[in-house]
Amino acid sequence: MSDETGVPSADAESEQPAGVSRRGLFGLLGAGAAGLALGAAGGAGVTAAVAAQATTPASRVYPFFGAHQAGITTPAQDRLHFAAFDVGERTTREELRELLVEWSAAAAQLTQGLEIGETGAVGGSDLAPPEDTGEALGLPASGLTITFGFGPSLFETADGVDRFGIADRRPESLVRLPRFQGDALKPEYTDGDLCIQACADDPQVAVHAIRNLSRIAFGRASLRWSQLGFGRTSSTSTSQATPRNLFGFKDGTANVKSEEAAAVDEHVWVGAGEDAAWMTGGSYLVARRIRMLIENWDRTQLQEQELVIGRDKAQGAPLSGGTEFTEPDFDASGAAGQPLIDPTAHVRLAHPAQNSGVRLLRRGYNYVDGNDELGRLDAGLFFLSYQRSPEQFITVQRTLATDGLNEYIRHVGSAIFAVPPGATAGGFVGETLFA
Amino acid sequence: MSDETGVPSADAESEQPAGVSRRGLFGLLGAGAAGLALGAAGGAGVTAAVAAQATTPASRVYPFFGAHQAGITTPAQDRLHFAAFDVGERTTREELRELLVEWSAAAAQLTQGLEIGETGAVGGSDLAPPEDTGEALGLPASGLTITFGFGPSLFETADGVDRFGIADRRPESLVRLPRFQGDALKPEYTDGDLCIQACADDPQVAVHAIRNLSRIAFGRASLRWSQLGFGRTSSTSTSQATPRNLFGFKDGTANVKSEEAAAVDEHVWVGAGEDAAWMTGGSYLVARRIRMLIENWDRTQLQEQELVIGRDKAQGAPLSGGTEFTEPDFDASGAAGQPLIDPTAHVRLAHPAQNSGVRLLRRGYNYVDGNDELGRLDAGLFFLSYQRSPEQFITVQRTLATDGLNEYIRHVGSAIFAVPPGATAGGFVGETLFA
Repeated sequence: MSDETGVPSADAESEQPAGVSRRGLFGLLGAGAAGLALGAAGGAGVTAAVAAQATTPASRVYPFFGAHQAGITTPAQDRLHFAAFDVGERTTREELRELLVEWSAAAAQLTQGLEIGETGAVGGSDLAPPEDTGEALGLPASGLTITFGFGPSLFETADGVDRFGIADRRPESLVRLPRFQGDALKPEYTDGDLCIQACADDPQVAVHAIRNLSRIAFGRASLRWSQLGFGRTSSTSTSQATPRNLFGFKDGTANVKSEEAAAVDEHVWVGAGEDAAWMTGGSYLVARRIRMLIENWDRTQLQEQELVIGRDKAQGAPLSGGTEFTEPDFDASGAAGQPLIDPTAHVRLAHPAQNSGVRLLRRGYNYVDGNDELGRLDAGLFFLSYQRSPEQFITVQRTLATDGLNEYIRHVGSAIFAVPPGATAGGFVGETLFA
Repeated sequence: MSDETGVPSADAESEQPAGVSRRGLFGLLGAGAAGLALGAAGGAGVTAAVAAQATTPASRVYPFFGAHQAGITTPAQDRLHFAAFDVGERTTREELRELLVEWSAAAAQLTQGLEIGETGAVGGSDLAPPEDTGEALGLPASGLTITFGFGPSLFETADGVDRFGIADRRPESLVRLPRFQGDALKPEYTDGDLCIQACADDPQVAVHAIRNLSRIAFGRASLRWSQLGFGRTSSTSTSQATPRNLFGFKDGTANVKSEEAAAVDEHVWVGAGEDAAWMTGGSYLVARRIRMLIENWDRTQLQEQELVIGRDKAQGAPLSGGTEFTEPDFDASGAAGQPLIDPTAHVRLAHPAQNSGVRLLRRGYNYVDGNDELGRLDAGLFFLSYQRSPEQFITVQRTLATDGLNEYIRHVGSAIFAVPPGATAGGFVGETLFA
């Protein structure tokens, strides 16, 4: 089991053939199997016991426990359900801690393709509400990962009261992002005390996870906003083809990939001694809902589109030449002396060379949420990036102030979260904060 | 090629191996290939020429031309993008007709995994906006079907003017649905002059289709409302497993299946001489956005959930006994004399026995559109049903007035559309109306 990459090892001992749904077995065999599964989920053996050889996306199973949380360097799954929560005004420190304990226990089950609780959706008493809502009964794990984060507001004092007793444990850099040029943020897509990122190759599995975790939170935390993403816009593994965003361009070609161990350590994980101690092995997550003005974009000529991006649309090759993975040559110029990659091109401004060497691990998704009253699709990119410090995102986003792409996008939502390290088997995510 | 079932025949002649993306070839080979593809799309040979043997969902290709439109009896794909349009006030009959011609030509290309237009996303002039928006470049056809419909408002006179000269061709039954008990309809999810249903196994392919068809409509018709569905809630083929809705129950067990040729003819297709002549071979589509109050549902005991549905949650078997596909016995009673299937159970009230033998072909999808201001998921069922007459839906929906499920759902959107027959190769959907 490789905690570093999140890739399930092919030689992990497996209790069952790949592709068989334990979720199904669990629900239908009743309390005996349920007890067994709960025991496994709570114990050290869970990841090895239920990991299956990944032969199809549906049969992929990622361990929940590990040095880092899964869902960061894990090869980006195809679908997303993301949720931000507000903790209730009267929720106590102990209740918040208990919520995190319950969330981790449920996430450990869900990510292994199990139902939540002791009896799942159909194994309990007829006279009680089922523990699990059941819409994922019979579906395999589908590569589900569940990643938890803490927003800056969780550490804030309310009316002078340090409500969870963690105000002094806030990492110095965990503050709301500064206002960037062009920001048009709406409260309904912004901020949050807690977040959960659920990624899977089956949207029903991701939705089921967020729904059941929201239900567990009832009375202690409630949904502030949530976002479905239907298609990934980044690769986080060299084994993945580069997907296209809704501008029709390949996106994330130069992303930090999980196989680049040194780059991941340098750019993604918080190192020992460089931040609040409880964040060692964690990361910072920036979420931005970026509305694309796709009707405007669609009316621009191909040359303008390619100039704005700095890559050709067909292959994703930089306009300085080569193929998709050729390094852009920002000094190259054409016959008339003009730079082949425009000074305002997105690929130039987002490049580490323009940002003191900073890189981000991007994990965004395409979204379409109906249309606005003018009949324009409410569509765009739900940008997610992981970095060892919020300063990395801030640096890049400030450089992008002159990005030609700004004419075609609006940042309408924004949030930042401290993503703590992974939980040890039997522990919970956030344990280092509440220790 | 079977027009009846929409299932691509396994022995269709194929120009290429299954799973190879022609969309990719088309875009990257440039104008020569583009011209060839356009010729094919416009000609009689298109369906046979590009149909590939379906070995995976991604490689499935369904013919666009045929006696009936695809996307009705076609085995329900996993993902949906549905759009309703208003035709512009100044749009003329000829412009509307031309829009339908262009829509059909584009749909014929899209459903075969091709880009739209003559040059696609990257094959045209650098100095023109690309014809295709490009986000599906490199993706296979993914079983895409595109189905067009006409709402009652298309036939209405405006200020006494018969704007498209079709007022006298309105089928008598094509009127807005009556108000049903409990309806809580919102204008933003209701009605529409035209509709397009795009179903595919890859959501990016469905979104790409709606986006490009919306773009073609620019200046003539604009999006009124649209809906993404992430998971199918019905099977339309006996080859498909029954999926679960967001109440966690199997849905659509007793649906009309494409393999039931007699039932399809009896319940789905408009027969010759029984309706407006231009509708022969067509059907009627009812769309209902049904919000599920899932938090309320999740707090009810398993016994109540099963009583309300009339089936057990694990297997989907009727409470009168047997397995999923056992016919419910509505007269069966328990030891205390109580009916095993409650008088208010959904399965009883929706059954043909309670509805003069009426059946519907359902093709609904689960949806989640973020959450409301109370932190409740805005989630439910986007119900789609096809029937030879709107009266079938009206009959069932009136019987459902006493459905126990009504406590847990709200109908918030509604629309009805006449779905004309399929187009002959080189023709367009709606040709029979405008002839």
